[in-house]
Amino acid sequence: MTREYLSEWLEKAACCSLPGPGVSRLFLTREHRNLLNYLEPLMNRCGLDTQLDDAGNLVGRKPSRLSSKTLYLGSHQDTVPSGGRYDGMLGILVALLAAHELKDEELPFSIEVLAFGDEEGTRFNSTLLGSTAVAGCFDEQILACTDKSGVTLREALQRFGLNPDHIHSIARDKEDAIGYVEVHIEQGPVLEKEQLPVGLVSAITGIERHIVKIAGKSGHAGTVPMHLRKDALVAAGKYVSWLDNYCKTEENIVGVVGKLDIHPNSVNVIPGTAELTLELRSPDKQTRLEAREQFQTVTAKLVDKGFTVESDLIYSLEEVSCDQGLTGRLQTAMEKEGVTPRTLFSGAGHDGLAMAHLCPIAMLFVRCRDGLSHHPDEAIEIEDALKSKDILKRFIKQLASDF
Amino acid sequence: MTREYLSEWLEKAACCSLPGPGVSRLFLTREHRNLLNYLEPLMNRCGLDTQLDDAGNLVGRKPSRLSSKTLYLGSHQDTVPSGGRYDGMLGILVALLAAHELKDEELPFSIEVLAFGDEEGTRFNSTLLGSTAVAGCFDEQILACTDKSGVTLREALQRFGLNPDHIHSIARDKEDAIGYVEVHIEQGPVLEKEQLPVGLVSAITGIERHIVKIAGKSGHAGTVPMHLRKDALVAAGKYVSWLDNYCKTEENIVGVVGKLDIHPNSVNVIPGTAELTLELRSPDKQTRLEAREQFQTVTAKLVDKGFTVESDLIYSLEEVSCDQGLTGRLQTAMEKEGVTPRTLFSGAGHDGLAMAHLCPIAMLFVRCRDGLSHHPDEAIEIEDALKSKDILKRFIKQLASDF
Repeated sequence: MTREYLSEWLEKAACCSLPGPGVSRLFLTREHRNLLNYLEPLMNRCGLDTQLDDAGNLVGRKPSRLSSKTLYLGSHQDTVPSGGRYDGMLGILVALLAAHELKDEELPFSIEVLAFGDEEGTRFNSTLLGSTAVAGCFDEQILACTDKSGVTLREALQRFGLNPDHIHSIARDKEDAIGYVEVHIEQGPVLEKEQLPVGLVSAITGIERHIVKIAGKSGHAGTVPMHLRKDALVAAGKYVSWLDNYCKTEENIVGVVGKLDIHPNSVNVIPGTAELTLELRSPDKQTRLEAREQFQTVTAKLVDKGFTVESDLIYSLEEVSCDQGLTGRLQTAMEKEGVTPRTLFSGAGHDGLAMAHLCPIAMLFVRCRDGLSHHPDEAIEIEDALKSKDILKRFIKQLASDF
Repeated sequence: MTREYLSEWLEKAACCSLPGPGVSRLFLTREHRNLLNYLEPLMNRCGLDTQLDDAGNLVGRKPSRLSSKTLYLGSHQDTVPSGGRYDGMLGILVALLAAHELKDEELPFSIEVLAFGDEEGTRFNSTLLGSTAVAGCFDEQILACTDKSGVTLREALQRFGLNPDHIHSIARDKEDAIGYVEVHIEQGPVLEKEQLPVGLVSAITGIERHIVKIAGKSGHAGTVPMHLRKDALVAAGKYVSWLDNYCKTEENIVGVVGKLDIHPNSVNVIPGTAELTLELRSPDKQTRLEAREQFQTVTAKLVDKGFTVESDLIYSLEEVSCDQGLTGRLQTAMEKEGVTPRTLFSGAGHDGLAMAHLCPIAMLFVRCRDGLSHHPDEAIEIEDALKSKDILKRFIKQLASDF
């Protein structure tokens, strides 16, 4: 029966979307409204009191008469354009299912299932409005961000019937916050490779992005001798091969040159300039900084060879570690549910990045097919999701009994 | 005096151009006509009988009463858009100056200075109409090529007052052709580096071009572990670094990956596909074929790693060796003029590629500044050009006395 519930809920939620392929449900759109209209009665049915806050979060609360403490669960309701039906939504619905199964139990703390309005940040190029509001670290400036039609986030909130000037009042009290636990699809292939339904998250990655501009010397591809060339693509290739080798050798770091443009980009002309992006992600700051140092060594070598290299750090986001206490409890629950604990770090950002400003956080990953996410073909096994629900429920009950 | 002549001629010829920067004189245009109007009386003044043939070549002939043999000199009159004033034109004017100085000498063979209509091939994306016509290897199909306004080469010839149906009759008699000697700017930095005014050309390069399409697997740059990635840019980088290393290690070959496009080309996405061009040039066919074989080894390694690689040979042009007899004579003349003989191959194509179908060919390169060509800043020292004229004149006189 639980299995049917979850499948049906996922199906119905996926219908709150622009026409396909995949699910397209952006922040503060008609599709968002449709989902709220579906989720709110569902939350009520799971025994939760509901409220739509002024940041567009739908909050389902199971209040406790025994203390003012609260455990936060949830994930985000928005998707990337033509995304999948599990990224975000799975974490909300697994939490709801756990709440449903705990409906008749009196807990010594309240539970809130948070359906955050925006995490992907696709519409406004800003992200985590919902979770930063709850966590009390909301930055008012993002209200001026615009979507591609020029509508500001502030205007969009107002048109949705929300009051952006009240967002600050959404912040929860740190004293009362026990922790935030999120279930999310892995979005990578590790659990599938290791045949594990669920994994524990050690940390949410830190990210830094650089733009590297290389100026060599363009020239006739036939007449300039090899030893006199300053081929900007050859130089760019040094970053590509270094980064790949480095991240394959070192632990706990991934990196990519995702963007590369060369000029003049012509079959018989030596590339004169190249511009690339270099991204580093690690759950460990020191590891990331060491990689950055090595990256600068590559630059120095190119400068020695006569290239002009300009490198700018254009984006940087600090890593957030999952709380050892909460994660240890999740691990115990996992073992009791017969799942070998496997810890991995999250290479993607999540609402936990913001929620960590409020309270300890922890995450469970659910195995997904082919490591695929942000794609219409995103898929999981429903049994894996149910396993995550069992672990989450056991975790809550144990937390309650130890309270 | 000779110095002033050449400078003035180069200056006047450069004025037959669209407005700058640089010289823009495309085939069968008003600028071409202006140049012909300047060159024809100049040729006459140098003692040459002139004729505009139906391929748009202006031919200046110094006939001999002593034999039916002819020595061919010259170069092309057209330029790339915003090109320089020396590429092509220098070879015509140096030959004219030599003819001028030999005006009163009776030679045992005729001399023809050929101002070929098109070598750059910019207007019609076809090339060497003029020299293939003279050499008797003209391909009628290129008359259907169009310029960017849709005018065919055939129509353009007709509008210029020429008869494309007579082009076949331009072909010279192989029996009477002694050889073709062309002076050209180097378009590379070798002679400048070695402080030599003039160099000997061993061969005109063979060229092959490949398009390589690599399919790896796109994915989230944070969530796919390094060892499970199939990054198409990392794969493309293998060609770039292999080619650079290979051509720097081997003799007589140059190569470039001039064009590279990756998809989706986004800062936080693993590149899923890459498309690149790989060009090889060598004056020696075996060398080029060996490089091609090694290139296929790179492909094989990538296929082993799970990449899908599609590689197509899209262009191939056979190398042409300069004639040892003629080149040896040029070398002797050079030494007598006090220039250390330095032999280099031409990495660019030239009219000699076509003329080799008619007779032995040889070439002299004149040092240029910064190896720059096809650029408004293309520059030479006039003394170097005069040195090439002295060598050419001495070569002709010696050929005549040995005749």
